[in-house]
Amino acid sequence: MDVAKATNYDSLLSRRARLELPTPRMTRTAGTANEPAPLYLFGGGFPDPASFPYQGLVEATQDVLQHEGAEALAYGHPRGYLGLRELVCEKTRYYEGFDISVDNVLITNGSSHALAMACDLLVDVGDTVVTEAPTFSGTLHNFRRYGPRIIGVSMDHEGIRTDELEERLKELARQGRKAKLIYTIVNFQNPAGMTQSHRRRIELLDLAEKYDTMVLEDDAYGELRYDGEPVKSLFGLDDNGRVLRSGTLSKILGPGVRLGWLLAPKDLLPKVAQFKADGGTNPYVSRVATYYMRKHMHEHVQELRGIYRQKRDLMLERLRAGLGDSAEISQPEGGFFVWIRLPEGTDPQKLLDLAAARRVVHVPGSNFFPAGDTGFDHIRLAFSYASLDDIRQGVDLLCEAIKEAR
Amino acid sequence: MDVAKATNYDSLLSRRARLELPTPRMTRTAGTANEPAPLYLFGGGFPDPASFPYQGLVEATQDVLQHEGAEALAYGHPRGYLGLRELVCEKTRYYEGFDISVDNVLITNGSSHALAMACDLLVDVGDTVVTEAPTFSGTLHNFRRYGPRIIGVSMDHEGIRTDELEERLKELARQGRKAKLIYTIVNFQNPAGMTQSHRRRIELLDLAEKYDTMVLEDDAYGELRYDGEPVKSLFGLDDNGRVLRSGTLSKILGPGVRLGWLLAPKDLLPKVAQFKADGGTNPYVSRVATYYMRKHMHEHVQELRGIYRQKRDLMLERLRAGLGDSAEISQPEGGFFVWIRLPEGTDPQKLLDLAAARRVVHVPGSNFFPAGDTGFDHIRLAFSYASLDDIRQGVDLLCEAIKEAR
Repeated sequence: MDVAKATNYDSLLSRRARLELPTPRMTRTAGTANEPAPLYLFGGGFPDPASFPYQGLVEATQDVLQHEGAEALAYGHPRGYLGLRELVCEKTRYYEGFDISVDNVLITNGSSHALAMACDLLVDVGDTVVTEAPTFSGTLHNFRRYGPRIIGVSMDHEGIRTDELEERLKELARQGRKAKLIYTIVNFQNPAGMTQSHRRRIELLDLAEKYDTMVLEDDAYGELRYDGEPVKSLFGLDDNGRVLRSGTLSKILGPGVRLGWLLAPKDLLPKVAQFKADGGTNPYVSRVATYYMRKHMHEHVQELRGIYRQKRDLMLERLRAGLGDSAEISQPEGGFFVWIRLPEGTDPQKLLDLAAARRVVHVPGSNFFPAGDTGFDHIRLAFSYASLDDIRQGVDLLCEAIKEAR
Repeated sequence: MDVAKATNYDSLLSRRARLELPTPRMTRTAGTANEPAPLYLFGGGFPDPASFPYQGLVEATQDVLQHEGAEALAYGHPRGYLGLRELVCEKTRYYEGFDISVDNVLITNGSSHALAMACDLLVDVGDTVVTEAPTFSGTLHNFRRYGPRIIGVSMDHEGIRTDELEERLKELARQGRKAKLIYTIVNFQNPAGMTQSHRRRIELLDLAEKYDTMVLEDDAYGELRYDGEPVKSLFGLDDNGRVLRSGTLSKILGPGVRLGWLLAPKDLLPKVAQFKADGGTNPYVSRVATYYMRKHMHEHVQELRGIYRQKRDLMLERLRAGLGDSAEISQPEGGFFVWIRLPEGTDPQKLLDLAAARRVVHVPGSNFFPAGDTGFDHIRLAFSYASLDDIRQGVDLLCEAIKEAR
């Protein structure tokens, strides 16, 4: 309603609703009215829409409504459709080589919902959490709504630096505090691209136990590996019930199904499940997705690997051709992103404007750091969404813009 | 994972995760192994599965994937699919006779999610909220995860007693406190059945303004009116931005689509929207449901009214035949429920066991009261799910059980 008078809600809002969320440190300077619409979309981690199995989903819908239509349209199990929880177990066994049970699986509305539920479980306003620096900007946004203090720990080619992490945890202990969780993106880290080594994973678990904290392992892209061998997941390595792990169908089926999951130790799962207020994650689309994936998951993932490997290779090739040795370019073994340290002296704000004038979208590196005025010397590009032609043209245009932005 | 050692999570949990939730005051005494499976299901507010438009949804899915498949499978708008927000506006205009804008509408994963988001916005652990007594047990469960003190206010045939409500609000003011929200189910109150009168609605809004609190109006069943005239909604009557309103497709399409909404004053909507961590409520099923409802909503609602009116009438007839004047039986003009004050001297625990032995499920009245040892003299029956034959047989069996339970 348009209201007759402006009500002041301040004294009614919850503590979380009164939090002031930071605004992005870099945004486009006001675009002119005749600025061209973006065309080369290297911004978000969006799957290739040409990869979506439209016909397969229509067939799956028919199957579902014929075989269990009444269940598909009724309220669902609080932990999610059993068939999908079983599929998550099978997927974990097939792609990651370890066994979990349906009692470890809570279906969620995408993996951002899984991460939010981990916060519901663990984080009060004023608590401390640890993330990698850089880390996924969406998770920073997600966490910030819980009002924690966020500590960033840097990475090297093996992933999170466990020596630096231990320093931070020690420091907290000296202050009589502790981290509630350590958030880590283990495979093809978003945005930085490296995969956490087995050695670091073991060290991370040891630190979680030693400093009494949880690990929140995010793995949205694990199946989309184009080279190299998988490293066993933290959840699979953990003997102490210290790990929560999020996963999703967004990248291997489509974000529009909004299906993800949280894996949790069996003891802890009921505690986190009680925060679900969604009446049982979508029983309808859970069945449609499960019916499709039961039949097609392995071939579909195989097909996706081919599509994205080609896109990654083309983007890396054009970047090298355009930037030579002037920039550091990540070499991700999987996932959707390339992380670039810009040539020295590049003005990031100028680059944002010059790229936009060429209709190219990228994400400034500063979006990925939990705190401080840092990351301006990086950008992240997604190769997942754009067509091969658009990658070819768009990356060449971006490289021009980078040269001009010095 | 099965963990080698039991980790003690206590010092890691959030304040909300450490809340102790009350257990139901009445449950079945342990059923024997050879106890018969329930057959006459008058428990939950489940729609009639025979009413679900299976073929219509297959056709809608085909349409969606053909016309906007890429959008249906991509990330969604943070406030929900625009087409569905427009449908909510149209529905409000058609069934309730007032105009809202898409800027008042936030799509949610069912209306329980909408209620939880209202709590995210307003309620901290230890805050006070007001509900009707009795009220929907699911909402009590939903609220309790936010740790508020819940004050119940009684009702008469016009709905919530505003005189008693003002006493409670005054009392709070004297203690230097206030209610963060007043939760009310305006139409065919669940479980008690009455519809809040226009006069009471005006008084309720005046009290919200006078005592600086919000009203949370729940209307899951409004379109399913079988007699009488609609009363204008609190959200439509409010001039002061004091009302949040939840609605849902669960009862007029199917709970399995998990689509509901929160209506909020335009100023307040961005504040509550920031708590959505679902990546945009299901873009896929939002479109399927919208495409179906755009074509069929009015005829489908009309058909449902016919189905449920007949079920209600039959249940009331069999209850009167079985119980005569010994019980008080509600006469709801719509919705799914009948509320019964049991004959004096009925033992509610004995009734629960005797009904179960006859394969009849009902809900004990005590589940619907926010506090105190009360409501044992009532039960709630849903007429929505069972077939006409099952209503006929099941209600007769239940009446026998009631007579035996004295």
